[in-house]
Amino acid sequence: MSIESRSQTSIQLTQTVQKSGCATKIEAEELKKILGSVRFPEKHPNLIVDSDTFDDAAIYKVSDEISLVQTLDFFTPMVDSPYFFGQVAAANSLSDVYAMGGLPKTAMGILAYPLATLDSQVIIELMQGASDKIAESKACFVGGHSIDDDTLKFGLSVTGFIEKDRSWRNSGAKPGDILVLTKPLGTGTISTALKRQKVSEPEITDVIASMTQLNEISSLISRDEFTSIHAATDITGFGLVGHSLQMAKSSKVSFRFSMNEIPRFSLTETFLEAGYLTKAHRSNFRYVEKHTHFKNIMEIEKMIVCDPQTSGGLLLSIHPSMASQIIEKIKMKFPKTSVIGSVEPPHKECFIEIHG
Amino acid sequence: MSIESRSQTSIQLTQTVQKSGCATKIEAEELKKILGSVRFPEKHPNLIVDSDTFDDAAIYKVSDEISLVQTLDFFTPMVDSPYFFGQVAAANSLSDVYAMGGLPKTAMGILAYPLATLDSQVIIELMQGASDKIAESKACFVGGHSIDDDTLKFGLSVTGFIEKDRSWRNSGAKPGDILVLTKPLGTGTISTALKRQKVSEPEITDVIASMTQLNEISSLISRDEFTSIHAATDITGFGLVGHSLQMAKSSKVSFRFSMNEIPRFSLTETFLEAGYLTKAHRSNFRYVEKHTHFKNIMEIEKMIVCDPQTSGGLLLSIHPSMASQIIEKIKMKFPKTSVIGSVEPPHKECFIEIHG
Repeated sequence: MSIESRSQTSIQLTQTVQKSGCATKIEAEELKKILGSVRFPEKHPNLIVDSDTFDDAAIYKVSDEISLVQTLDFFTPMVDSPYFFGQVAAANSLSDVYAMGGLPKTAMGILAYPLATLDSQVIIELMQGASDKIAESKACFVGGHSIDDDTLKFGLSVTGFIEKDRSWRNSGAKPGDILVLTKPLGTGTISTALKRQKVSEPEITDVIASMTQLNEISSLISRDEFTSIHAATDITGFGLVGHSLQMAKSSKVSFRFSMNEIPRFSLTETFLEAGYLTKAHRSNFRYVEKHTHFKNIMEIEKMIVCDPQTSGGLLLSIHPSMASQIIEKIKMKFPKTSVIGSVEPPHKECFIEIHG
Repeated sequence: MSIESRSQTSIQLTQTVQKSGCATKIEAEELKKILGSVRFPEKHPNLIVDSDTFDDAAIYKVSDEISLVQTLDFFTPMVDSPYFFGQVAAANSLSDVYAMGGLPKTAMGILAYPLATLDSQVIIELMQGASDKIAESKACFVGGHSIDDDTLKFGLSVTGFIEKDRSWRNSGAKPGDILVLTKPLGTGTISTALKRQKVSEPEITDVIASMTQLNEISSLISRDEFTSIHAATDITGFGLVGHSLQMAKSSKVSFRFSMNEIPRFSLTETFLEAGYLTKAHRSNFRYVEKHTHFKNIMEIEKMIVCDPQTSGGLLLSIHPSMASQIIEKIKMKFPKTSVIGSVEPPHKECFIEIHG
């Protein structure tokens, strides 16, 4: 599919907003401080997973057979074509359900757009992108809400099903596990370069293809292989190292990464060298620095692992005996899938070690 | 509860936004045009109710015993106190589940706020208001998403359960039914007056109490009474007459209202006379005028029935033999509940008649 054939508008969406994509996310520490001051009621017994474990989505038990897995995400455009923005936003929202091992069933749209300045054709193409991606996931687009607002924002509230207790959590990683990443890093810096018009959409088709690809892997693997994935999360706004820290903390283990094995888009280093950083690069670094040991790592490499991802890949913690056969299957769909490290026993306050 | 005791901030939220509450909603006709141009896939067999019938929420069948009822809503502040804004936004979002006859089970927050200019205490109080209202509904607050944005916006994505096929639709109204409204009209014009600082929050405690009250009525009535409510909807952004038009069209009937019986807040007429209209008053009028016969109705009265409601009441179409006993029970909780009209056979293109 060519980019040109999809769009009847000449507008470049990234030029209509100040901050783009996951870079608009509130910092983890700020959010924690706010939520820590709210008196929430006691946890409901049907609520099996909530935000305590930094998991990607909540799990609510309906019956012994079925639980709901629920997530919600929305942001400003990080690509220029409305159709692709709809696809990326949908893939990004659906991803949290996949990261828990669930299958999406329903999706509702969250749309804010400037009625006065944005042609309705933009919204038609955006909704078409979202609808096509939701249909690909076999979920139903069941409704949503739209408001007149200063800047364009879009995302989905997604509900999936989990059969019995067949789910992946953040807290399941075990020492000895192999750590696998399914998509390259670098969407944050590349989106920033796009916004600054240092690169055009046709030059980053690999990045757009990655961001629009659904993180669905459970259809690729057997039931036994599913179970040997001890923990999973998707890499989004907090970057590889931010989400890894959350997983390592929840699992009470430490992670050791090999920098050279971490996949990245070809343009990532180029644009990081040119200084195309987001606020989130720095806030992600601040979030992790106390608990991360960077061993012979260059500044630019630190920014790669702190790069805020939009619709990033899955980080999987896999039992070593099953890792190679699972990776082989996942690679059929995600060819950049790489072993990037291993799970180690806990190390006091240091949860992550990245060596050059 | 006094308003003062709840707030540690002196900020007046309505002064931080250009447009407030449901007045930010995209016009029904505009939305219809956009969605009509998107090629959606064929309807999934499990999707029992979708947006085709203008229903308040979607219904997705999980099993023979349980269906999900799902809805999503968010908006800018229409009151000044963060705690009340959280409560109103939560009550408004939960309302769509009640309007379908469901019981809310989970809620996710949609939060956009200006990090740089809004004190985090505002967000703490807002979240506390939402959390308290969700707890009152017995649903779980399971997560959500927050972004840094120019203006404050908040709302919820709510999932409820419906047992078997025990639900209310927009399409069930029958000729001979009695039409009942459970809350007074006028929140749109009163919020506008608040925003223009012509009235203060302590002077409109009745309006705030109404907007924060949950539209839960099914616990008040018996199973038989539940079944004799043939159709229900909640009155929000499109006003009494906009939502009535949708219900009458879906049900293939016409509605006859008696203007004098329609409950309104005491300040509504005062502020309408002073010209405190929103854009939605006019767009709601345009939306309905072709299909509505106003008979001896003053201009100001037309604006009352077109007033965009935030967290408005339920409009119920009840079998005449059960109406008085149901109204008596609902009045225990919603004392302003009134019989405002009746359902008539279809009248060509005229779906609504309002007489003075």
